[in-house]
Amino acid sequence: MDKIPVAVIGASGYSGRELLRLLLFHDQAEIACLTSRQAAGRSLAEEQPRFRGCPGADTLRFVEPTMENLQASGAKVAFLALPHGVAHEFAEPLLAEGWRVIDLSDDFRVQDAQAYEAFREHAHPAPHLLPQAVYGLPELHRESIRKASLIACPGCYPTSMILPLVPAVRAGCVRTDTIAVASMSGVSGAGRKAAVPLLYVECNESVRPYNIPKHRHLAEVEQELSLAAGHPVVISFTPHLVPVNAGIATTIYASAAEGAVAADLGKALEEAYADEPFVRLLGEGHLPDTKNVVGTNFIEIGWVHDPRTNRFVLCSAEDNLGKGAASQAVQNFNLMHGLPETEALLHV
Amino acid sequence: MDKIPVAVIGASGYSGRELLRLLLFHDQAEIACLTSRQAAGRSLAEEQPRFRGCPGADTLRFVEPTMENLQASGAKVAFLALPHGVAHEFAEPLLAEGWRVIDLSDDFRVQDAQAYEAFREHAHPAPHLLPQAVYGLPELHRESIRKASLIACPGCYPTSMILPLVPAVRAGCVRTDTIAVASMSGVSGAGRKAAVPLLYVECNESVRPYNIPKHRHLAEVEQELSLAAGHPVVISFTPHLVPVNAGIATTIYASAAEGAVAADLGKALEEAYADEPFVRLLGEGHLPDTKNVVGTNFIEIGWVHDPRTNRFVLCSAEDNLGKGAASQAVQNFNLMHGLPETEALLHV
Amino acid sequence: MDKIPVAVIGASGYSGRELLRLLLFHDQAEIACLTSRQAAGRSLAEEQPRFRGCPGADTLRFVEPTMENLQASGAKVAFLALPHGVAHEFAEPLLAEGWRVIDLSDDFRVQDAQAYEAFREHAHPAPHLLPQAVYGLPELHRESIRKASLIACPGCYPTSMILPLVPAVRAGCVRTDTIAVASMSGVSGAGRKAAVPLLYVECNESVRPYNIPKHRHLAEVEQELSLAAGHPVVISFTPHLVPVNAGIATTIYASAAEGAVAADLGKALEEAYADEPFVRLLGEGHLPDTKNVVGTNFIEIGWVHDPRTNRFVLCSAEDNLGKGAASQAVQNFNLMHGLPETEALLHV
Amino acid sequence: MDKIPVAVIGASGYSGRELLRLLLFHDQAEIACLTSRQAAGRSLAEEQPRFRGCPGADTLRFVEPTMENLQASGAKVAFLALPHGVAHEFAEPLLAEGWRVIDLSDDFRVQDAQAYEAFREHAHPAPHLLPQAVYGLPELHRESIRKASLIACPGCYPTSMILPLVPAVRAGCVRTDTIAVASMSGVSGAGRKAAVPLLYVECNESVRPYNIPKHRHLAEVEQELSLAAGHPVVISFTPHLVPVNAGIATTIYASAAEGAVAADLGKALEEAYADEPFVRLLGEGHLPDTKNVVGTNFIEIGWVHDPRTNRFVLCSAEDNLGKGAASQAVQNFNLMHGLPETEALLHV
Repeated sequence: MDKIPVAVIGASGYSGRELLRLLLFHDQAEIACLTSRQAAGRSLAEEQPRFRGCPGADTLRFVEPTMENLQASGAKVAFLALPHGVAHEFAEPLLAEGWRVIDLSDDFRVQDAQAYEAFREHAHPAPHLLPQAVYGLPELHRESIRKASLIACPGCYPTSMILPLVPAVRAGCVRTDTIAVASMSGVSGAGRKAAVPLLYVECNESVRPYNIPKHRHLAEVEQELSLAAGHPVVISFTPHLVPVNAGIATTIYASAAEGAVAADLGKALEEAYADEPFVRLLGEGHLPDTKNVVGTNFIEIGWVHDPRTNRFVLCSAEDNLGKGAASQAVQNFNLMHGLPETEALLHV
Repeated sequence: MDKIPVAVIGASGYSGRELLRLLLFHDQAEIACLTSRQAAGRSLAEEQPRFRGCPGADTLRFVEPTMENLQASGAKVAFLALPHGVAHEFAEPLLAEGWRVIDLSDDFRVQDAQAYEAFREHAHPAPHLLPQAVYGLPELHRESIRKASLIACPGCYPTSMILPLVPAVRAGCVRTDTIAVASMSGVSGAGRKAAVPLLYVECNESVRPYNIPKHRHLAEVEQELSLAAGHPVVISFTPHLVPVNAGIATTIYASAAEGAVAADLGKALEEAYADEPFVRLLGEGHLPDTKNVVGTNFIEIGWVHDPRTNRFVLCSAEDNLGKGAASQAVQNFNLMHGLPETEALLHV
Repeated sequence: MDKIPVAVIGASGYSGRELLRLLLFHDQAEIACLTSRQAAGRSLAEEQPRFRGCPGADTLRFVEPTMENLQASGAKVAFLALPHGVAHEFAEPLLAEGWRVIDLSDDFRVQDAQAYEAFREHAHPAPHLLPQAVYGLPELHRESIRKASLIACPGCYPTSMILPLVPAVRAGCVRTDTIAVASMSGVSGAGRKAAVPLLYVECNESVRPYNIPKHRHLAEVEQELSLAAGHPVVISFTPHLVPVNAGIATTIYASAAEGAVAADLGKALEEAYADEPFVRLLGEGHLPDTKNVVGTNFIEIGWVHDPRTNRFVLCSAEDNLGKGAASQAVQNFNLMHGLPETEALLHV
Repeated sequence: MDKIPVAVIGASGYSGRELLRLLLFHDQAEIACLTSRQAAGRSLAEEQPRFRGCPGADTLRFVEPTMENLQASGAKVAFLALPHGVAHEFAEPLLAEGWRVIDLSDDFRVQDAQAYEAFREHAHPAPHLLPQAVYGLPELHRESIRKASLIACPGCYPTSMILPLVPAVRAGCVRTDTIAVASMSGVSGAGRKAAVPLLYVECNESVRPYNIPKHRHLAEVEQELSLAAGHPVVISFTPHLVPVNAGIATTIYASAAEGAVAADLGKALEEAYADEPFVRLLGEGHLPDTKNVVGTNFIEIGWVHDPRTNRFVLCSAEDNLGKGAASQAVQNFNLMHGLPETEALLHV
């Protein structure tokens, strides 16, 4: 079978690099067009020396991100690995030309333009596109993803919260007004930008909360939890920066609903994810570790019930660049093209 | 003034080393006796090469931990830097001989022997000593500490929770049945023991929760919170291991009590700690960073109120070996001996 | 084509785990037998939680390392991922039964039993097997490897020195009596053993030389350099432990031979490695970085000539668990079985 | 005794911060003037939150670096913690006004303006000041330092090389044409500048050589070695960046001079440093570790003789910000003012 030509737009950050890594070894996709303003004219191997010697990396070259270049590539599907607030500028003309778009930014994740605005200082830049956007979490929206033209890939923190919580909320195991979350993220989550707070010496031997109480990616979490609950859900969330390159550990507190016990939560999770290829349910009392999932598309979920406070504690671990970004984008791509969902994603 | 001779019993772990570091430079204390079974006969500088060339470290020698050696030293106060469950074996004969004892273990922190037992598999080993034990958190029990014969130095996680929470609880700002805590600790908190899970390769690039939902040091936290509240308080707590040598970041959720606003919490904290030399109140919306406190006796506290969920978020940062162990022990020592409370503790 | 059944003996260490990772995704090999005394009865996914959900990992089980189990597996080739000095106990009976053996230990790397003994306290344990052992560095011994029954996979430090140096020595670019090497290794190189010096807190924020001047793996380096030179070569070597999980950076000094200039060295390296799939020649003045090769079978080599001292400086970077151990073992396996040499080895 | 008022000019980098840390706790110095263009008007505690609560840090404020401000402070001695190439602009007017200047940059370390130029692209900016500059390595130039008006504090790499080598060279133990050095430095050595290569994710899990073969700080090393040898000495040097915040490990190769044995080297080092308060001679076969010296003014030196190659290997460890910069500056200050040389410098 011929490989599917794909375009990758703007891949100079950490998520973009992870995406390229996965696509280079995807048996049924090939990078037909790779764009970057700064890197135009240079080869992928020059830009990303880690890829030297990999098939294609020495010859694949960045080009300017023009519609001409994109159209000439023969691709009809594009990955947007662009900064938040920029992706929609590319999504719009591509969709108009009949492309399918897989966006890793947060431009289209919140389907209600007012909810988007409530977490930002400004209005949504392209609200007319929102109706066609599908929130790209395969475990929740697999069928919509298959036929979507515009995929809004979930954020890294959101994925680590939504996947453990949705089955619990759907099954009515938890009191949705009691959800409070603490997450710890590796530094790649802050992006590849030259800023003093992200310097090695500033992050090493440092643990610090930041950006509370209204991290803007809460909007998509609450959207999905509200959908699961059938009523609006508002939660608390505190992100922390910890000195690892990648990985998110998330710990969730929620009071047990009247009568709910650990077995109910376990059953809800099992029913939701028993057949999911990338969700590792560790079982009650077993706890995840980011080092088991970094570099992969897997998410680990463990849980306990605390009888002393009658709270559930749900813990997850994922790679912020993987299941939280690039590999999830590829999982969406596989679904959209009728490929095996695990294609290019099982390597650990 | 002559220096006060002190004995240090069992200082081979990380807290013990930090304690020795502080005592070596304490202007009004001198280490008159230093005991260790394994290290007996060796000098401090040989055991701890970091101390080579420091005043006294090359000549100070470890001796066997016998009462003869202790008595011969001229000291009448001892620091116990021993494993949990062992300290009481030394405390008992020393107290009987009229010594004052500053214990860094958890043997005497919980004053109710039944509460102790509820978090362990066994009965308290020396319940008759509990009545004389004072929980060594100067910000809460300064006057009792001054005249105590037996100080139970608080645990590292407990210090990071109790200090932010007690003023909030006392002032009635929070609903005590809604408290949930996530802490991240450096690996030194797990001790200096040869175990595969503590190897560099196992901890580096790893973030993991552990030991939930009933970490045994919750007992002392709930004791102090109950005391502050005037009724029993039970909380949730999840510790996480993160790849730093030292430091604890703690994030606390608690629902605001009816009518309580951010200013109330700020006022409660200000009133409690404005004059405390080691509590850095960062103010509303300002968040702590472990790298600012590691190696010191300081604790930083920041907070926000989240109007969306009507919860307070309190964040603290301390050194698990410092304010969470060794430097707090020295702070207690200073108080017990009428010395300036900050003696030997201001270096950063 | 049917996959080739392979046995993996003793894979509880870091190199063993990396080997399993590669074999799990090898298109033309399957793990038919996996042995471990401690893990017998458990699945690979239970032992190595990182592999949960990977094809085969949940069902593959460790068995006792008996000849019965090995023979029953149908395999005729075995990887030995055993401690140094133990591997020969398995190699002997397997070779006697006609198996081919790929040994990751240092038991068979030095082909002269006296040279082996000179770097150890004891005689070689199985000198009669040495004549059939081939030093498994494909770039130097590809043809011998293809037909070998016993492969001695090179050590991690040796690979990082031999590959840059052999072309320089062969081409007569350097004075062989002036070679001095400094290497920095990640902590996984010290193995997965519970020992205080390998604890996180002992290795983090620490850089330290060790084990000089006669690291035992110098024996194999000098063997290969002497072979290249046509006369005995003796060199200096200092290993350092640095706080990374994996990766070796090696820096080599050697005086330029009479008249040799940078272009000569470049030419020698180009001629040796231009077609090698896993050697990245960075070019004069371009320097390697371990982060570009960790997790791969690639080695990077850069170099400069210093006119002030008339010395060459050669720098290499590799993964001590990859090109320095497990992936190189797979490269040997591929060669021995007539497979594409890069099979399973191009992922980055 | 009244404290000596000092001025600190430009202390926004890592060395500057370390210098302030030491001066804050110096019993006989007080910071009378603290200048910074960016930070003018802000307190030290605001700029450096780690210092909050330390004596003076909350009230001490940065001012603009004008001569008026400096003169008004009452200080007659200044520490310059400025970028290389900028310090001379402040040194000149201060010296003209009769101040004594302790410069941490490399502006005045090389006393021969031509040698300075040979390692740079440009001429020395203030050659007329060179005659009064003293190279501030107390172990070598103590008496000149006592009465100097202008101290050029040694670089971090240079200190780690010069101290081990000078006694060896002076005693004729080594062949000076065979010296080759590899050093590994923590990331703080690269300064506190927002640059992608210094980001956490770029440095963590990375080891890399850089800037060879002519690092500009070789000029001062060769100056001091030539002085010791009595003839020009040229050496090889390769710096490496390793993922620690601070610390330099240096490993030096040098062929033994005719007849020189390990005891000769040991004797030379002992004679040079037996009474030095900050040089820890570990003895033959004992190797240093950066974690034992980081945060201090100590340097550790170990060594071996390799009979196989007849080379000496000298290994040192120091803090690049300490003995390699700020604490050495304070040691110079102590000497210049007739204070105990160890004042403020013994804490570990």
